[in-house]
Amino acid sequence: MAEKITPRTEDFPQWYQDVVLQARLADYSPVKGCMVIRPNGYSIWERIQKELNDRIKASGVRNAYFPMFIPESFIKKEADHVEGFAPQVAVVTYAGAKDLEEKLVVRPTSETIINSMFAKWVQSYRDLPLLINQWANVVRWEMRTRLFLRTTEFLWQEGHTCHATLDDAEAFTQKMLKVYHEFSESVLAMPVVPGMKSEAEKFAGALRTYCIEAMMQDGKALQAGTSHNLSDHFAKAFDTMFLDKDGKQKHVFQTSWGVSTRLIGGMIMTHSDDKGLVLPPMLAETHVVIVPIVPKAAMAESVYQAADQLASSIQEHADARKLPYRLGVSVDKDETKQAGWKFHEYELIGIPIRIEIGPRDLEKGQAVFTRRDLGVKEFIPLADLPARVSKELVAMQADLLAKAKAHRDQNIHEVSDYATFKKMIDEKGGFYKVPWGLDRQAEEQIKEETKATLRCILLDDGFKPISAQAPCFKTGKKEGTVMAIFARSY
Amino acid sequence: MAEKITPRTEDFPQWYQDVVLQARLADYSPVKGCMVIRPNGYSIWERIQKELNDRIKASGVRNAYFPMFIPESFIKKEADHVEGFAPQVAVVTYAGAKDLEEKLVVRPTSETIINSMFAKWVQSYRDLPLLINQWANVVRWEMRTRLFLRTTEFLWQEGHTCHATLDDAEAFTQKMLKVYHEFSESVLAMPVVPGMKSEAEKFAGALRTYCIEAMMQDGKALQAGTSHNLSDHFAKAFDTMFLDKDGKQKHVFQTSWGVSTRLIGGMIMTHSDDKGLVLPPMLAETHVVIVPIVPKAAMAESVYQAADQLASSIQEHADARKLPYRLGVSVDKDETKQAGWKFHEYELIGIPIRIEIGPRDLEKGQAVFTRRDLGVKEFIPLADLPARVSKELVAMQADLLAKAKAHRDQNIHEVSDYATFKKMIDEKGGFYKVPWGLDRQAEEQIKEETKATLRCILLDDGFKPISAQAPCFKTGKKEGTVMAIFARSY
Repeated sequence: MAEKITPRTEDFPQWYQDVVLQARLADYSPVKGCMVIRPNGYSIWERIQKELNDRIKASGVRNAYFPMFIPESFIKKEADHVEGFAPQVAVVTYAGAKDLEEKLVVRPTSETIINSMFAKWVQSYRDLPLLINQWANVVRWEMRTRLFLRTTEFLWQEGHTCHATLDDAEAFTQKMLKVYHEFSESVLAMPVVPGMKSEAEKFAGALRTYCIEAMMQDGKALQAGTSHNLSDHFAKAFDTMFLDKDGKQKHVFQTSWGVSTRLIGGMIMTHSDDKGLVLPPMLAETHVVIVPIVPKAAMAESVYQAADQLASSIQEHADARKLPYRLGVSVDKDETKQAGWKFHEYELIGIPIRIEIGPRDLEKGQAVFTRRDLGVKEFIPLADLPARVSKELVAMQADLLAKAKAHRDQNIHEVSDYATFKKMIDEKGGFYKVPWGLDRQAEEQIKEETKATLRCILLDDGFKPISAQAPCFKTGKKEGTVMAIFARSY
Repeated sequence: MAEKITPRTEDFPQWYQDVVLQARLADYSPVKGCMVIRPNGYSIWERIQKELNDRIKASGVRNAYFPMFIPESFIKKEADHVEGFAPQVAVVTYAGAKDLEEKLVVRPTSETIINSMFAKWVQSYRDLPLLINQWANVVRWEMRTRLFLRTTEFLWQEGHTCHATLDDAEAFTQKMLKVYHEFSESVLAMPVVPGMKSEAEKFAGALRTYCIEAMMQDGKALQAGTSHNLSDHFAKAFDTMFLDKDGKQKHVFQTSWGVSTRLIGGMIMTHSDDKGLVLPPMLAETHVVIVPIVPKAAMAESVYQAADQLASSIQEHADARKLPYRLGVSVDKDETKQAGWKFHEYELIGIPIRIEIGPRDLEKGQAVFTRRDLGVKEFIPLADLPARVSKELVAMQADLLAKAKAHRDQNIHEVSDYATFKKMIDEKGGFYKVPWGLDRQAEEQIKEETKATLRCILLDDGFKPISAQAPCFKTGKKEGTVMAIFARSY
């Protein structure tokens, strides 16, 4: 029998760890800070990859693959970049039974190695825009790690593009943030707040970083994706230049953008409950499990036959309806496990829909239907089930998003003074929407005093910071304040 | 204008490199031995992943992800394994601004790190078989590298399974070799010879290694995939045990199997020609390119419109016919390039079908159709083109395999004495089917004297070595000889 999951109200971080380990999504590895993504977790990543990859390609981007080793000298070429990443890198000093002449950094991100290739490939304005993405593993040495949320090695996609002008780069940076925003809500059913990072929190080497911030069930923020306008910073460091229409050699302007396996952690902390994983149907591999109830061995054949037939009808209906994923249905005929054990197991691993069917149900021409997020048993005529399953999967995806949105909106507090903010964030957590004077020292002080960080500066539809029309909640500064979100975060 | 491709007859290795670089499949990177896979090459890998992944999953295997770092002590636990891989590993000695207490090897393969997890996950016979695969990057420090064929870092999939008995492990080892065999021929259109490696050539740590060997156009062999029966070698090193039905603790029996990005190199050297890449339709992203011919600007609109309409009809027809891939059609309206340049370009990058359409063709209700592998222009009525395209794509896939099979079969020579073998391999290359006495010293001597290696021992349908009924071609030994293939290889 499985262990007990710690309730969320008792200890949220422990609850999260219990869900991840007990649902066999991931495990600790013998290598410090590195996780193993188990099949139940990896199948979620495969769905994320499929859906996001389709969106990335629809944006005109093509996939490629660059070496994971980066010559140490490359990392040092962009001044801010080396300052940001040097303390976190893992370094290969020895290979092929010899000390290396130049040490190789295991990529923490690939702007530098990719620019060394872009510098060779980009010659003329005809080569622009150059839109490339790669799915890869990266390494950032972390002191404190958490499964999915912060690990030394993680999987991600990193997009890297070159443009002829800063405006084009800015437009593409914004475009990819919108892709992440839509993807987060449509696929992960995870509502996010889009915005801009402060100077202190932007990517090491970027002109400007946009981000999407999600709110977990405990009210903390999770940075779920970032899109950077790199301007010509890396192009200058690597001499990535093109011959423009006017006959002049110019540096390209670039963007980079990424999301990682931490999205899985964010998704878990958005939807799951004290019984285990709650998985949006868009991310499931198996959507429906049918559990035949067989009180006596003699009844097995007729019940199994009915279960198999039901599985086929459900599959056919879903295929005809063209759900945005291939429906997975399974019939659990394992006779070494009790029905009660199975119910517990399928709740734990987050199968969206469970159907029970026994001899009595068969007589009545019905089955018991339960949606994982609602947990309410309902008797449904067998003939109605296929249509009902397709309908409920669509509804469940929408309901999870709506529920998460409601939770988020209830926990975004508008405050205008620091004392109230300090008091409230200790009492109830959540996001704080405040007038902000863009003072870096004040930002640092808030972090020290409250452990809250500036998650993002809020933007209007044109990606311009929204003016606050009120003095800074921390410094009282009156001019040029903007609206920003502060919160404690993962 | 693009550079000239060296003809195959002049210099085969140079021809290969010219095709890879000029078709922009891959490029050299600034890191010794590491390549960049460019979008034209990576899209081929994505198709390989999709097709092979479907087959792996249909075999009951689930995907997961394990850390790329392996504690140095793990690699040393299996004696043959460390001897095989120690000289090739890259080692991280420094990370997070500190020297590491235990050095970390970048995985050359993952048997050891995976066994450390299997030892934890496998408890009972109920947990078996455990069937896991991962898609990952691996690193083996190589002295002489070639794009795709042998690179320091490469991409691959590695399957790892645990079974209750040696027989079960053996059956699964064979099953996956059959998957690779079918995949190679159906998807890559690359015929292979299945067989067993010699003791000298088997995987470091395995009981037995099966392989598929392909023949390139120059008659050399390419090892295209391997499947290993690991017996309990790693299980003993890592104490991977299970409680069997009889109440006893036993070591599991394991398999591992993999194919890599070198398949792309093999596929290129199987089908391509002096004009560039020839790509089996199963591996293409864009299958059909329509080139509108516009002698005068005033004609552009009507020609473009006809081309777009043709593209739609072709797409619709292919979708309705349910080809085993989503057909890609593009219309090239780039007016900065000449038609001749475009023809050359699409031959170079291996678009399977090219269609030209100009004002004269429109008048006649026809277009010019050319299949990349045949290179013969044909006038086809517009109404017939959609059906013709679908039909020719299917035919091209089959024809490429048939052509490669014919080439292979013509170049497999049966010889029974070493003097003839030595003479023939110098004169005409190819594969040599010989009676073989399984003598390790003789194998080494043949390699030194002729640069040919034992590619595989031939097997009957039950995976047993085929008896030779003749004395060993090298030593003259009469008893227990088997049929084997010797060849020079990549």
